[in-house]
Formats: sequence, structure tokens, C-alpha cells
Amino acid sequence: MDFLRHHQKYAIQETKMEKSISLRELALLVEGDIVGDQDLLIHGLAPLENAGPGEISFLVKAGKKELLEQSSASAFIVPESIVESDKTIVRVKDPYLASAIIQNHLLKTEFEPRGISERAFIGEDCIIPEAVSIGASAVLGDRVRLGERVEIGPGVVIGDDVTLGDDCILKANVTIGYQCELGDKVIIHSGTVIGSDGYGYATDKRGYHVKRPQLGLVRIGDDVEIGANCCIDRATFGLTWIKSGTKIDNLVQVAHNVIVGENSLLVSQVGIAGSVTLGRNVVFGGNAGAAGHQTIGDGTMVAGKAAVHGDMPAGSMLAGTPAIDAKQYFRAVTIFGKLPDIARDVRKLKKELARISAKDDNESS
Amino acid sequence: MDFLRHHQKYAIQETKMEKSISLRELALLVEGDIVGDQDLLIHGLAPLENAGPGEISFLVKAGKKELLEQSSASAFIVPESIVESDKTIVRVKDPYLASAIIQNHLLKTEFEPRGISERAFIGEDCIIPEAVSIGASAVLGDRVRLGERVEIGPGVVIGDDVTLGDDCILKANVTIGYQCELGDKVIIHSGTVIGSDGYGYATDKRGYHVKRPQLGLVRIGDDVEIGANCCIDRATFGLTWIKSGTKIDNLVQVAHNVIVGENSLLVSQVGIAGSVTLGRNVVFGGNAGAAGHQTIGDGTMVAGKAAVHGDMPAGSMLAGTPAIDAKQYFRAVTIFGKLPDIARDVRKLKKELARISAKDDNESS
Amino acid sequence: MDFLRHHQKYAIQETKMEKSISLRELALLVEGDIVGDQDLLIHGLAPLENAGPGEISFLVKAGKKELLEQSSASAFIVPESIVESDKTIVRVKDPYLASAIIQNHLLKTEFEPRGISERAFIGEDCIIPEAVSIGASAVLGDRVRLGERVEIGPGVVIGDDVTLGDDCILKANVTIGYQCELGDKVIIHSGTVIGSDGYGYATDKRGYHVKRPQLGLVRIGDDVEIGANCCIDRATFGLTWIKSGTKIDNLVQVAHNVIVGENSLLVSQVGIAGSVTLGRNVVFGGNAGAAGHQTIGDGTMVAGKAAVHGDMPAGSMLAGTPAIDAKQYFRAVTIFGKLPDIARDVRKLKKELARISAKDDNESS
Repeated sequence: MDFLRHHQKYAIQETKMEKSISLRELALLVEGDIVGDQDLLIHGLAPLENAGPGEISFLVKAGKKELLEQSSASAFIVPESIVESDKTIVRVKDPYLASAIIQNHLLKTEFEPRGISERAFIGEDCIIPEAVSIGASAVLGDRVRLGERVEIGPGVVIGDDVTLGDDCILKANVTIGYQCELGDKVIIHSGTVIGSDGYGYATDKRGYHVKRPQLGLVRIGDDVEIGANCCIDRATFGLTWIKSGTKIDNLVQVAHNVIVGENSLLVSQVGIAGSVTLGRNVVFGGNAGAAGHQTIGDGTMVAGKAAVHGDMPAGSMLAGTPAIDAKQYFRAVTIFGKLPDIARDVRKLKKELARISAKDDNESS
Repeated sequence: MDFLRHHQKYAIQETKMEKSISLRELALLVEGDIVGDQDLLIHGLAPLENAGPGEISFLVKAGKKELLEQSSASAFIVPESIVESDKTIVRVKDPYLASAIIQNHLLKTEFEPRGISERAFIGEDCIIPEAVSIGASAVLGDRVRLGERVEIGPGVVIGDDVTLGDDCILKANVTIGYQCELGDKVIIHSGTVIGSDGYGYATDKRGYHVKRPQLGLVRIGDDVEIGANCCIDRATFGLTWIKSGTKIDNLVQVAHNVIVGENSLLVSQVGIAGSVTLGRNVVFGGNAGAAGHQTIGDGTMVAGKAAVHGDMPAGSMLAGTPAIDAKQYFRAVTIFGKLPDIARDVRKLKKELARISAKDDNESS
Repeated sequence: MDFLRHHQKYAIQETKMEKSISLRELALLVEGDIVGDQDLLIHGLAPLENAGPGEISFLVKAGKKELLEQSSASAFIVPESIVESDKTIVRVKDPYLASAIIQNHLLKTEFEPRGISERAFIGEDCIIPEAVSIGASAVLGDRVRLGERVEIGPGVVIGDDVTLGDDCILKANVTIGYQCELGDKVIIHSGTVIGSDGYGYATDKRGYHVKRPQLGLVRIGDDVEIGANCCIDRATFGLTWIKSGTKIDNLVQVAHNVIVGENSLLVSQVGIAGSVTLGRNVVFGGNAGAAGHQTIGDGTMVAGKAAVHGDMPAGSMLAGTPAIDAKQYFRAVTIFGKLPDIARDVRKLKKELARISAKDDNESS
């Protein structure tokens, strides 16, 4: 297909804006210190290798200062340790953070409501402000209440009595079960299911599993982002609760009655079993997990693929299955491959010692 | 959003019914022994801390008997070892199981068919009883046959020649591929895909992978529940088969030609590779897996994150990757973190022994 | 449900065709050597136990030659080492591969376009050839460009400016984000999400996570197949790229800016973290993973559940977390269960040696 080949330059992927903003204004946003032309007009942000005139770029590590020379950007966000340059620079504490803040500012646009698609289905007694977008094939149940500037993608299904706060974005084919509550500025990516039944059964003498009704709901705080194809189960009773500021990657499982504290990070394929409570700013690496009914303290970091068993104090650093102290784990794991040598050495030592002991005993006798 | 804040009491999550049932009738269901007022009328079940008058609650462990005092419930399901109480109690062998049975009984309602949404699309030559509910944006292929009281959520897609038994519930955005067969009382949660192609390729000399057509189907027995965003692949030839009573959590992968025996439990993020046969009442913990072409005996239990390689006899208890006897694994794993100490000790022992041997030899000579 | 029980013979699952093809023609396709009737007409392929007259079957291993006797197939694809038989045989180097090629040839049909469902929604300025099928409840954005003979299942959502090559198949409920590019003959199974946002945040002093806009796209080469409920995230800038011939199983996560080389295999539940580059013909076993920002060489094989940390040269064979040489890992793991014995032996050896040393010192003094 010929038309497949013509996007080679990715101009579309840069942060291009009609509006231009002065470097002074951008530097203010990030408490940056400009060395160079403060009145420069900036209309976009791009990586060093792609940025052109009128765009700002960023350098995360001072050691790579020479990369600035090769870039066509008009200005650069750089670490504070760089004090001068031939180029116009904005010196900041954390260039990675500053560039994200500046890029978001450059990209900010008015919400443009597209209204409710004729192909969407809206249930009874819903409360829907005028300034929303609801895509084709989307289905809202009864008594759904949407905040201002909500965007609901095509194919989204929202159950009865769901409430969404302001500025929420539900991408295509998201499913939200009945009665769930989302705060403001929640982003949910495609295929994710909020409010499916928790996995709860009681097993009888014959080994038959009796379903426990799952009657609770899911509450999601403000500024939460949840990736694609995740599952956040409703509680058996009460709440499964993702608190404000938490960011969840794709394919993550959060079971019934889990509480995830503020500003936590659950990387892709994490699984949190039922009734676990995570503190705030907890980080679970890719495909890590937590067994049920535990409390994991604030700021705990769990290495990828680890599985936490048991309560953990705040600030724990964990790795392995079951997870132990991460430093201890990574020290031990470097020796793991030498286990056959160690085993052989121990066998030899036993023989040798037996020989010496025997000789010793002979000599003593 | 003000309307987000007013669900604080979760009255909605309790098991409230219009009908009231006598405690005598409920006790009969669970072979329970009532101490107190047998004629009490019960209309709901709730946890100890939430239950109010007219509701029954439950206590799983006798050791926490004092919790009954603080609860406002009218009656309590308790372990048999509690023989008396100031409160009205129902003594049972397994309070967790009994409370599930009683709750289900209290929640039982007549199926209320909502018919076929005008926004649903139904293919040709389907057999659809009157008493069904089919949601908006749902799409049924040709020759689909539905049992009585089937509930099909919005956005569900069902392929040609699929059959569903009675009382099946397909939640929103489920996909069922052509020719698959579901038994009675099957519940499938949102985003799950039944009957996608198995992952089968033959690789040629150039390293190019030739797709093997996947022409079999998926059969699902009675009383099976499958969580959200799972994948159950169709067989290459013949059947992938989930037998009756099995319960599958979210994000589980069941590959082509797998057979899962009756009443098995596959916890979230489990992956069962192609052509594995599981016996009945097998349990796979969260994110555990099984490599292809194995037979795993009845009642086998696999710890979370373990990976089973090779056939396993009935009643196996397994952990680790590749999985070994669980007891052995958990004993060994407690020592894992001490590997650096062991390695250092062995090095020291070797030196020390070399010194002694040398001295010994000197003395002998 | 009575109608559930009558599919016992699975005739439907065999490769039945109206057209018949001569054995001579089929043998030519796979450079096979016929022993027997070259003019036999074949209309289908089935496994040994199911194949009947007019069908061809296949035997992967020469050692099981006696199975041919029990089969009713008219001809058999067999390994070259079988030189003669009472049955009509086609001798080939790789019967598994040859049977896949023959089966695909037998199944090949003209594409029969069903057109655009009245229940589909098509955005503005799309380029859609006449020979396509677009199912009910499917939603296409603006400026979507489809190749010839594309098949789009019910409930599929395609964002603005997406391009699909010829002969692509998107199964029901797939989601493709804006601007993504698919090559020719791409197959994507239900529930998969292409082009969701990458997981990128910059964390400020308060521990609050600032979203990095994800402005890149996903490009998918020719002949790629992606299973059900996968997630392929768009790049932060530039491309996430799945190159031609790669086959991805279900529930796989491919993060932003990942490049997967040609003809690679990612088995179910694999997770590839951000900015990883995989070479060609790389294989990741089930639930294996790779941590971010690595380069993994051509032909590398990673065992199931392993996690690769760090760059790896071409041809690496890896297992464990973090992954080490697979042979070393599998040798070490057989000893893992004996760790308690080794630890006890070492303790004993230390005591024994201390005793000898003490005695020795006494005698010396």
C-alpha cells in the first residue's frame, strides 16, 4: 500500500501549536534560569534529534552536553550543572520533569465538545452536561452522571448509577460496571474493565465452589490514569479504592477490596490480590505481585516479577518470590548460578574432612 | 463534583431484599443449629461492621467472638465451636460457606427479561427465546442459539454458530468466537475473549513462521465463571474445554487444546500453555503457569508465580520455576538470601582445610 | 439445552473444501516425494484420528509409523526417513511445516466482501475500497485508509488517520489508536489495543507524577499476527515498531518505543518494557519479560517466566530473573531444593573443622 509509506518524518508527533509562548513564560513554569534570549517564541517541544527552529528540546544528563551542538532546536532545558552554552538554555533542577511540564503547557487546548453521537445509546435519568463528547456505539446505563468536559470513546460501556468527575477521558471500548465512582481528570485506556466481580468463592464438601456475591464498588480518585486491558474488581462489600494521583500501566490486575494509596505506580502486568492495602507512593515493577490480605507501607518499592508475601513497613525495598530485601536478593542471585560449584565443593570438603578425621582418630588411638 | 461524594454509607452494597425470610428457613439451607429466635425475619446479609436490624452477619473464626457484641445485626452465622451467645446465632460447620449460601438465597430474584435492544444487531437464523436481555451495540452472528434467561451485555460480539445454555450472563464487551459452545449458568466478565485462534506456527528454513489454521472450538461446561480480559483460545483441531464448575479469575490465558477439569480454580494472570490437561479441583495461584503438553493430576495445587514443567501426579503441591515440591521450595527459599554467606563459608573452609592438610602432610612426612 | 449436545463429531473442524486438489499438486508445494497414487484427489486435512477418505493427514515423528495403519486418511505427509508404506505417503523434510502449508492451500478461498454494515459508523474523508467487510457497531474515525480485502469485525474501533494495508483482519472489539500504521496481511485478535499511551511520567518533589504526552505512533509490518487482549503502546516520540513476520500471542505487553525485529515470537503474557530493541527471530517464552532500554540480539531465546536485564548478544539462551545463561540456570535450579542440606552441611563442616583446629592447636602447643 503506497499510502503506508509516507509518514517518514513524524512531523505529526511533535508538539506543534498554533500559539507561541515566550521562553520567559515557560521558564517561570519550571523555576528555570534562562541563559540566552528570554523573548524567544516557542511553539513546540521535541527530542534533540527531531527538534527544529521554534522548538525547545531537553537534555537529561549534563555529561552529554555536546548533543546540544548537533540539535536544531531554538532552546534547551538542561541540568543546573550546565552553567553556560552557545545555545539558549533553561537551567533547571530536573530537566526530565521540567520538559514534561513545559510540553503539557504547550499542548494545552480548550476542550472541544463533540456532543453525543447519534449512534451512542444513553439510558434513563442520566445527568450529562452539554460540554461532553460521547462516541458512536458507546452505551450508558441509567442514572449515569457525567462531569464537565468528559470524553467517552466509541464502544465504551458504562453501567447504571456510575458517576464520573470533570475532565475524565475514557478511551474506546472501556467498560465501567454499575455504581462505580470516578473522580476528576481520570484517564482510562482502551479495553480496561472497572468493576467486574471480585474472585470470591466458598468451597463445599464436594469441592463445588459457591460464588460469593460481589456487591461493593470501585472508587477512583482524581488524576488517576489506568492503562489498557486492566481489571479493577469491585469489592465484595464496601470499596476497592484507587486513590488520587496513582498511575497504572497496562494489563494490571487489582482484586476486590484492594486499596492503592495516593501517587502509587503499578507497572504493566502487576497483580494485587484481594484485600491488600498499599500505602502512598508505592511502586510495583513490571509483573510484580502481592498476595492477599497484606498491608504494604508508604514508599515501598517492589522489583519486577517479585511477589510480596506478608505485611511490609514503609520504605521497604523488595525483590524475589517470596520477596525479601532487594539488596540481599540481588547479592544472592549473583551466586545462584554457582550453586552446582558450591554443592560440589561441599561434597569434596565432607570427604576430605572425613579422611582427616579418620586419620586423626587413628593417630590418637 | 459534588455528586461524587454522597455514597458514603454504601447502603447500596448490602444484600437488601423486599422479601423477608425466616431464620429457620435459612438455617435449614446450611444445616445450621439456631440458638435464639427461630422466627426472626431476615432480609439481608452484611459484614459485622455494616449489618443492621433485620440483617444477618457472619463470623468466620470463633476466636473473635467479642465482635458479635459490637455488631447491630439481628443474627449471626458462627462456627459450631461457639455454643451459646447473648445474640441469636446459627451454628454451622463452615460459616464462610454458609454465609455465601444464605446470601445467594436472599439475593435470588426472578429473571426480568429486557428483550433485545433496538441497537443490537442479530444475524440470520438465530434461535432466541423470549426471555432474554440483549444490550445495545451487541452483535450476534448467524445461527446463534441462546438458552432461556440469557443476559447479553452491551457491546458483546458473538460469532456464527455459537450456542449458549440457559441462564448464561455475558457482561459488556465480551467476545465469543464462531462455533463455541457454552453450557448452562456460565458467567463471563467484560473484555474476555473466547475462541480466539490458538498460537500455532510452523517455522521454515528462512525463519518465517507459517500459521497453522486453528479450526477447533472452545467448549465451556455448566456453572463456569470466567473473569475479565481473559483469553480462551480455540483448539487447532477438536476442543479447548473448560469443564463444569471451574472458576477463572481475570487476565488468565488458556491456550489451544487445553482441558481444565471440573471445579478447578485459575487465579488471576495464570497462563496454561497448549495441550495441557488439568484434572479436577486443580488450583493455580496468581500468575502461575504450566508449560505445554503436560498432564496435571486432580487436586494439584500450584503456588502463585510457579511454573509447572512436566506431568504431575494427583495431589501434588508445587512451587517455584520450574516447580518442585512446595514444602521443599519454601524451605529452600528461606535460605536463598544467605547464599553469599554460604559461598563465603565454603571458600574459608576450603582454605582452612588446605592449611590443615598441608600441615598434616608436613607432619606426616 | 439439547442443542448443545449435538456437535460430537466435530466434522466442522476439519479442513473441508468444495474443491479437490491432486496429491501431485500438493506435494509440489512442499517439495515432497510421493510414494503411491499421485492422482489422488484431496479435499481436506485432519489429524490422524479424525481424517477420513479424501483427506490427507500427517505424522510428525517416524517412530510412530504404526499410527498410519489405524487412520482412515487417504494420504499421509511423513518424515523422509520413512521410505515406504502400504499407504500413500508424501515424504518431506519437515512434516509439521509441510502439513501447515498444505492445509493453508486447501483452505484458501476468494475473499468475499460483505461491505459496510449499516450499523457501522464511518468518519469523514476515509478511503475504503469496495472489497472490504466492516461489521456492525464498528467505528472508524476520520481519514482512515483501508487496503483491499480488509476485514473489520464487529465492535472494532479505529482512530483518526489510521492506515491499514491489504488483507488485514481485525477481529471483533479490537481498538487501534489514531495515526497507527498496519502493513499488509496483519491479523489482530479480539480485545487487543494498538496505540494506547505509553506509561511515562516525571515525578516532582511532592511525589506527584506528571504525565509525559505520548505523541508517537505504532507501526506494524507485514504478516504480523497479534493475539487477543494484547497492548502495544504508542511511542513517546517516534515509533513503537513490530516488524514484519512477528507473531505475538495473547495478553502480551509491548511498551512505548519498543522495536521488535522480524519474525520474532512473543508467547503469551510476555512483557517488553519501554525502549527495548529486539533483534530478528527472537523468542520470548510465556510470561518472560525484558526490563527497559536494552538491546537483545538476533535469535535470542528467553525461557518462560525469565526477566532479561541488560543488553544481550545475538544467539543468547537465557533463563531466570534476572536472566543468566539458560544451561547454567537449569543446572543451578536442580540444586536449589537442596539448599537446606547444603546449609546444614556447611554448618557441620565449620564445627568439625573448628574442633580439629582446636585439637590441632592443643597438640601443637
